[in-house]
Amino acid sequence: MSFQLTILGSSSATPTSQRNPTAQYLTIHDRHFLIDCGEGTQMQLRKYKLKFTRINHIFISHLHGDHYLGLQGLLSSLHLLGCTQDIHLYCPKPLKEIIDLQLLHSDTHLKYSLKYHFLNTSEKELIFEDDKVLVESIPLNHRIPCCGFIFKEKPGLLSIRKEMIEFHSISTKDILRIKKGEDYHTKEGKVIKNKVLTYPAESLRSYAFCSDTCYDERILPHIKKVSLLYHEATFLKNLEKRALETFHSTAEQAAIIAKKAQVDKLLIGHFSARYKDLKPLLDESKTVFKNTELACEGLVVEL
Amino acid sequence: MSFQLTILGSSSATPTSQRNPTAQYLTIHDRHFLIDCGEGTQMQLRKYKLKFTRINHIFISHLHGDHYLGLQGLLSSLHLLGCTQDIHLYCPKPLKEIIDLQLLHSDTHLKYSLKYHFLNTSEKELIFEDDKVLVESIPLNHRIPCCGFIFKEKPGLLSIRKEMIEFHSISTKDILRIKKGEDYHTKEGKVIKNKVLTYPAESLRSYAFCSDTCYDERILPHIKKVSLLYHEATFLKNLEKRALETFHSTAEQAAIIAKKAQVDKLLIGHFSARYKDLKPLLDESKTVFKNTELACEGLVVEL
Repeated sequence: MSFQLTILGSSSATPTSQRNPTAQYLTIHDRHFLIDCGEGTQMQLRKYKLKFTRINHIFISHLHGDHYLGLQGLLSSLHLLGCTQDIHLYCPKPLKEIIDLQLLHSDTHLKYSLKYHFLNTSEKELIFEDDKVLVESIPLNHRIPCCGFIFKEKPGLLSIRKEMIEFHSISTKDILRIKKGEDYHTKEGKVIKNKVLTYPAESLRSYAFCSDTCYDERILPHIKKVSLLYHEATFLKNLEKRALETFHSTAEQAAIIAKKAQVDKLLIGHFSARYKDLKPLLDESKTVFKNTELACEGLVVEL
Repeated sequence: MSFQLTILGSSSATPTSQRNPTAQYLTIHDRHFLIDCGEGTQMQLRKYKLKFTRINHIFISHLHGDHYLGLQGLLSSLHLLGCTQDIHLYCPKPLKEIIDLQLLHSDTHLKYSLKYHFLNTSEKELIFEDDKVLVESIPLNHRIPCCGFIFKEKPGLLSIRKEMIEFHSISTKDILRIKKGEDYHTKEGKVIKNKVLTYPAESLRSYAFCSDTCYDERILPHIKKVSLLYHEATFLKNLEKRALETFHSTAEQAAIIAKKAQVDKLLIGHFSARYKDLKPLLDESKTVFKNTELACEGLVVEL
């Protein structure tokens, strides 16, 4: 089952000719999520041949333009391409007014229904759940209300050991119970522990997206041991003061968070336009947390 | 003196991976004008190495997203880059509310002053004038209120024939009068006609931008004999019915307008995403009006 992230934008507030503002495309078990939607996102989706008509859940972390100004254009294109399925939008409440005003003045009546889910930017919340995936929002510490998002795979059925089915002559009904994690009771009244009957469960994959934030250890319990963490790293360490003033982080700070949260892998992004060469940011992060990668346009991470 | 147009976007409502929505950069005598500002305009300006901090007059034809959704990002970048000079925005009135709402929720207080000039979309108006250039708006026939813009060079001083200065011993004061177009009165009371004293005036250059519009001959008197006409050509002739329904034009219709208005040169653009190859659009237009060119990204026209 796939769990794949594609980076569409790596720049901070002012894009460059090489770097687009924040947007990421996440596929988990045939669910297609868009995370933030900076200006130019629909062109980036086309560039990387990602069918944007598949997207029906869009998550917007906050209302700084570099995180949402591509949304109105994307919504318009989805309309013009004839999409009719519901689009779910998880976003700060004022975004509805902004979208409605622009639809009004362009005299656009969307062919699909836009379902709003307003974010609580002060505490962790479960915002999406189906049989295989759940998504939580967590508060981040930024200049305006801002959320991060954690995407988690849910446990599926266990794989049962074939030889055990034969040995105990287990019925189909009981097989399902065992796959769900129950122990087995033989006709003779003996209890066979589930872990003897099944293969160890695969570890569940998870992705935490920490959009714009200053260094804040309060996020640690929420992102603890995730498989993949994206944490912004707008500046190098020598601009730590500037980072704090603008509620952003340095590459070193992103790495400290990754280390303390014991995550498997770290992606850093949201790079200031001042850095033509990103290697110093990568090096700074790797000094603290070795398994770091730059979240550059076109990067695909398969978990 | 320069009169140079650069095309930044040629697509209609849904951009493609190759074509950006409408935006054009026009330089006349060191004045830098931006005409429409579709999503991604700031990245296109960077791509073509056009310094966008020089732009201080922005003209928005109408409030369909493909003509203005890049504006909020550009205004934000101008702010972040420390621009402090006034920016003049010529636009439909509701755009102010849209911009203000987005500035409010991103908690952005622009470092420069945004001077609004609301467009009259029902009749021709002079909207900008200085010593060398004037700009007029003209009503277009589109699904929502929409304006075209005409940029005109104003007559400058004439060039005086040196041998005439010597022959008549003309004073400095009189030279200026002659350069402004007056006749010369000799000490003996004789009148020397201005055209004898000066070289013929250079012909004045002009550019008409006709954004989204269906075929409408009411624009002809306004654009008569302009040096360069941009007219939208969303569809080929076989989709003329579709063009009319959506208040757009075909390539042939754009060419008929160019021919009837006796313009020097025609640019066609705003191409539907359905056309991978644009040659049929060019051919269709050239059949009626030979001096046609495709307004593709990166095209520079020097008048």
